[in-house]
Amino acid sequence: MDTNLEKHLSCSNYYQSINILNGISTKYPHAISLASGSPDNAYSYQNHIKSGMAEFEEHCLKKEIDYNTVVHQYSPTKGIANEIIFQHLLTDYTIKVDSENIITTVGFQESVLIAILCIFQFPKECLIIPDPVFPGIAGAARLARIDIIPVPSEIFHNEMKLELLIRKINASGKKVKAIYTVPDFCNPSADTLTLMDRKNIINLAERYDFYILEDNAYTLFRFKGENISPIKQLSDQRVFYIGTFSKTLFPGLRVGYLATPKTSLSNNFSHLSTTIKTFTTVNTPPICQAIVAGILLKNDFSLREFNKERLETYKIRNKSIEINIKKNLSSRSLFSQNPMPKINGGFFRNLKLPFKFGTKELDECAKKFNVIVFPISCMSFFENTEKDFLIRISFVNNNEKKLSKALNNLFNFIDHKLVANDKNL
Amino acid sequence: MDTNLEKHLSCSNYYQSINILNGISTKYPHAISLASGSPDNAYSYQNHIKSGMAEFEEHCLKKEIDYNTVVHQYSPTKGIANEIIFQHLLTDYTIKVDSENIITTVGFQESVLIAILCIFQFPKECLIIPDPVFPGIAGAARLARIDIIPVPSEIFHNEMKLELLIRKINASGKKVKAIYTVPDFCNPSADTLTLMDRKNIINLAERYDFYILEDNAYTLFRFKGENISPIKQLSDQRVFYIGTFSKTLFPGLRVGYLATPKTSLSNNFSHLSTTIKTFTTVNTPPICQAIVAGILLKNDFSLREFNKERLETYKIRNKSIEINIKKNLSSRSLFSQNPMPKINGGFFRNLKLPFKFGTKELDECAKKFNVIVFPISCMSFFENTEKDFLIRISFVNNNEKKLSKALNNLFNFIDHKLVANDKNL
Repeated sequence: MDTNLEKHLSCSNYYQSINILNGISTKYPHAISLASGSPDNAYSYQNHIKSGMAEFEEHCLKKEIDYNTVVHQYSPTKGIANEIIFQHLLTDYTIKVDSENIITTVGFQESVLIAILCIFQFPKECLIIPDPVFPGIAGAARLARIDIIPVPSEIFHNEMKLELLIRKINASGKKVKAIYTVPDFCNPSADTLTLMDRKNIINLAERYDFYILEDNAYTLFRFKGENISPIKQLSDQRVFYIGTFSKTLFPGLRVGYLATPKTSLSNNFSHLSTTIKTFTTVNTPPICQAIVAGILLKNDFSLREFNKERLETYKIRNKSIEINIKKNLSSRSLFSQNPMPKINGGFFRNLKLPFKFGTKELDECAKKFNVIVFPISCMSFFENTEKDFLIRISFVNNNEKKLSKALNNLFNFIDHKLVANDKNL
Repeated sequence: MDTNLEKHLSCSNYYQSINILNGISTKYPHAISLASGSPDNAYSYQNHIKSGMAEFEEHCLKKEIDYNTVVHQYSPTKGIANEIIFQHLLTDYTIKVDSENIITTVGFQESVLIAILCIFQFPKECLIIPDPVFPGIAGAARLARIDIIPVPSEIFHNEMKLELLIRKINASGKKVKAIYTVPDFCNPSADTLTLMDRKNIINLAERYDFYILEDNAYTLFRFKGENISPIKQLSDQRVFYIGTFSKTLFPGLRVGYLATPKTSLSNNFSHLSTTIKTFTTVNTPPICQAIVAGILLKNDFSLREFNKERLETYKIRNKSIEINIKKNLSSRSLFSQNPMPKINGGFFRNLKLPFKFGTKELDECAKKFNVIVFPISCMSFFENTEKDFLIRISFVNNNEKKLSKALNNLFNFIDHKLVANDKNL
């Protein structure tokens, strides 16, 4: 494969999309952003920081751990509070792993980088990712110079088609070594895998000998319907479980974790992941680990109750934009082309526009109509597809009044474009 | 090259040495450790955390920056206080870079990983490192699957020999793309590059078109003699300057920085390093950045005064172990084989034992004689050399009484081994 990282990373909207997302609000400070994946900012995080640290200090005192040394000096690479994260996984996700297999990381991104470096050892091994998807996974794979095979949702969600594809790839001399999935409320598609989908992926993983990278970012944010078992719960052996506290607590913590597959005769990912982490960041800032551990201790290891109010807010906001968008689409006779999918959780919904929406339109819409929405095409490897018409709308981090104003602005932009397009015909 | 990371990382003492270092004190809790590279633990870090955060919050208020959003949500990948680090570089190191070229990282290890991913784009490009050296650099290179060429100090410090080696490597079809150096008080050798050495490396870098990775971990810890200009000060174009606050503040912060080479027509490392960081950790925990920035603001950007008392302590401790070791060596007639080098700064000194000292001896010495010292051979790629007889002694993080006790234990171990060896003859 082409090994020139610079060419790939610097020139493509796909790999630049995190940079675009990070910079866009600063570029258009007067626009309302429906683009950000941040949780709601209405919480008093500062108090959580203080009380979390105090709680962890007390915990150390009880356990006769020297708090000052653990939090201020070099600390174990695996993490300083993995037995607390172990309890959290058990309580909130009904996942029971060996606590030796947990490693605390600097968020999702480091987890996925370490997982990839654990899995891929030989040339020609490749990674399947759904398309579109948040580019964190593909970026980490590029850094490790691993071949990525993006797969459109319609194949990814169809066991027979997916199996055919895997056979085709393996027959070509490559080897599918891992599949990445966000089973609950995937970013940006909002797709959720059914229980059957999850079992099918495990089945394929066993038959074709690959690993599953399971990303739980939005799992706790289901506001409708029954929870579906995490894949890790169904198969400890095949799954690298990638967790983050960026959504369940707050992103500024930069704390996540990785639960590697159960140790077997052929694999000791517990040991390998630790060695790899000594060469990415040595250890996760123990100050941040202490805050997370303290908050978990205060909440009996569960973040469900902690997020209850937030989740209710997200549910209301989703409903409010659903009604608003439906009304706006209907009044423009656009509704029939755009049946509104039911959103049962997560942070995002997609909307299909009657024209292509790329980075040029992102800028135009932000600059002239004061609303920022994100083109799905920036999170896709495929060009000239239906995805060019899709935008991602985040409904979690603006209140209803702002959401309503933002959607007004968006539909004004849509009207403007439709008139302009008519004139050009 | 062999791409099997697992084989390399898991089976070699070299790559396991950070793990060995991290685990050894827990394994032998009753032994005094002379192995750790931690700064002295006698400081009230907790107060620095509190006052640093408060100072940064005030700074944000003045600058009309929304502290809550910046510290608790996703923040710019490059860092939230780079203009403060810019001032720190100028004040303490007389280094003036474009502040656009600074990126704040999760410590030295992430800095060096990002630098390597910036530099190495094509197969056959290789990295020269001094040997012995702390394995962080080689570990990061292994993760990126870059060829490493370890070079013994006697060649590394000799311009003619080093040039010959570079020519030989380049003639073989490989290409020397970067050289790593710790110019001040290198870990573990305690070597310092003279001003002439530094100019020579720049000269070679320009003639043979490679980059210099300059690691400043111990630069501020000179307690004797004149400061020597950092290489970055002499050549902004050729140097990736790698900084850490682990020694000048404390390791639990996990904050460092990377100053990339000045942007030119052919290189934009400012942009590339930022894109790469979005795929390693997205951004450095802003809570930790805020603490660093706050402490720097409180100290007019300088950590020299902040470390003055510490440095005086380190100087006294170095002197005390120098006298102690000299006395012990002389009384055993070992001194002539082991002239004591003058140590002018840093954290470490080396000692040559009259027998080989590896991980087996590390365990024996810790278990039976209650003192932990680290074998230099664990930080070397070469086998069966004089380095097998060397140990690294840290003099910074134990008080004089403990240092004296530890050295007593060490010389008891030496006596024990000499008697045992005599018996075996």
